[in-house]
Amino acid sequence: MKMKYVFGVDIGGTTVKIGLFDVEGNVLDKWEIPTRTENDGEKILPDVADSIREKMKQMDKDAIAGVGVGAPGPIDAAGVVHRAVNLGWKTFNVKETLEALINLPVRAGNDANVAALGEMWMGGGKGYKDLVVVTLGTGVGGGIIVDGRMISGSTGAAGEIGHIHVDDTETDVCNCGNKGCLEQFASATGITRLANKKLASTDMDSVLRGGEVSAKTVFDAVKARDPLAMEVAEQFGKYLGDALAAVAGVVNPEAFVIGGGVSKAGEILIDYIRPHYEKSVFHGCREAKFALATLGNDAGIYGAAKLVLDAVADR
Amino acid sequence: MKMKYVFGVDIGGTTVKIGLFDVEGNVLDKWEIPTRTENDGEKILPDVADSIREKMKQMDKDAIAGVGVGAPGPIDAAGVVHRAVNLGWKTFNVKETLEALINLPVRAGNDANVAALGEMWMGGGKGYKDLVVVTLGTGVGGGIIVDGRMISGSTGAAGEIGHIHVDDTETDVCNCGNKGCLEQFASATGITRLANKKLASTDMDSVLRGGEVSAKTVFDAVKARDPLAMEVAEQFGKYLGDALAAVAGVVNPEAFVIGGGVSKAGEILIDYIRPHYEKSVFHGCREAKFALATLGNDAGIYGAAKLVLDAVADR
Repeated sequence: MKMKYVFGVDIGGTTVKIGLFDVEGNVLDKWEIPTRTENDGEKILPDVADSIREKMKQMDKDAIAGVGVGAPGPIDAAGVVHRAVNLGWKTFNVKETLEALINLPVRAGNDANVAALGEMWMGGGKGYKDLVVVTLGTGVGGGIIVDGRMISGSTGAAGEIGHIHVDDTETDVCNCGNKGCLEQFASATGITRLANKKLASTDMDSVLRGGEVSAKTVFDAVKARDPLAMEVAEQFGKYLGDALAAVAGVVNPEAFVIGGGVSKAGEILIDYIRPHYEKSVFHGCREAKFALATLGNDAGIYGAAKLVLDAVADR
Repeated sequence: MKMKYVFGVDIGGTTVKIGLFDVEGNVLDKWEIPTRTENDGEKILPDVADSIREKMKQMDKDAIAGVGVGAPGPIDAAGVVHRAVNLGWKTFNVKETLEALINLPVRAGNDANVAALGEMWMGGGKGYKDLVVVTLGTGVGGGIIVDGRMISGSTGAAGEIGHIHVDDTETDVCNCGNKGCLEQFASATGITRLANKKLASTDMDSVLRGGEVSAKTVFDAVKARDPLAMEVAEQFGKYLGDALAAVAGVVNPEAFVIGGGVSKAGEILIDYIRPHYEKSVFHGCREAKFALATLGNDAGIYGAAKLVLDAVADR
């Protein structure tokens, strides 16, 4: 029986997104269920299994390649999650647990890593095999693709580029417990923090003064050529450009794809990142392309589906 | 016919090392030939082919798995070198060129990447599948191993961690043309530079004052608890520990293996690197092991041999 379909599941802290795809990457159906995090999140995978089983009633089971899962925590290549605080999960094997519930091949990975695979398959990274996807949202996430495959890392923590240390002088503590992480400067929260600091430290006139300060208002102000906002964007670009240059020194990707809510600012983001990247990076990596993510919040379900297709192809 | 033997070739700027191995990784024979770099290094691969062919006269050709090659330049997964200045090489396909000369399967990689594979196979990284090898010599080289396989990068520049930008205030220019590269602080040359700067900037007494200043004398002085040398070792450890923490945020290895001439100082090196690494790194990567390389200058021939064995196993 030829494989025709694959499920992609993106487990978030409040909702689980589920997509049904054909093997060419077209979305056939897409829906959400609530994430029940009580009792160490013990209901999450049974709920996912029930929802997929319900959908499968109208389908030929033999044509289904399997179920891919992305979740917000470190998940290694064997499918073991090493604690996912937002879901209440401790350490257990996500792949094996869901396989026992649904009787289909399952693969699992960290949500940011999986989203990177999605962007490579059907999004802003299409056509590249060596790719780094950076997600600038509340935090900074990352996913590393080498030769078309997602890297999980030895304990599922590959691509945690939001926690690369970039500033020795920072006194505020990052969510991770360290000080001076990239996330403190390049996330939506980080950009807001940089702007508020700049507003407090200078008398410079700015459209941001007295109004709402957010990553969106900062980059709107940059587009209006507000000098203070442009200084903030410079700071952001320096931190992120230098960090991506370090990432390039490790895996030498063909391209960086920038996603997450902050990326809605558009190409102007890249205009601020790229010059700093080019200045810091090893010359052999200088030609890397920069692109914007295109799948938005669906990157996770796409990538999860691709993860299980890759695994099935390897057998 | 069962494969029994494999050749590993490490091309350096003055000599080419060649090793004959059995497939279990035992060295059966080892020799050197001069590297003839004249005329864009056009004689190098023919000389290698002649030398191997001479050795093969006493062997059963059908039992030879192939020839692996490491060379000092960016070499991508297809075997294309993108200029190797020390050899006079411009851009061409090393793998295909040598295959045409010797009629055996060939694989090629950057020398530092290949050496990392060697340390994983039979050296300080034995038993690990996710590994970063850092070579502290005249420069700082690196090799990244993910799931047992060497990463080449899109243009052969993966693992160029010596050129991660670590200092915005540096005014001296690195060999690569940038300023503030890790190599300027953590190589043998970099340690010497740090020590000379420290000696010039303070009146502190030190056994280094007036004598020969080198990475070796600095770490000998550290072992004798010379306060100035210990401050230099702290600076070295901070630069390298922070940079390896950034590397961990990308590929999340099980272990770091430290090699190169500077590593002859021994475990004391790790004592200076590890605390800075642990302070800067994402908590999910904090448990990484640190070990010393054990193959010395033979890492390249071991890794080159393993590279071709991996490729043959994949067919």
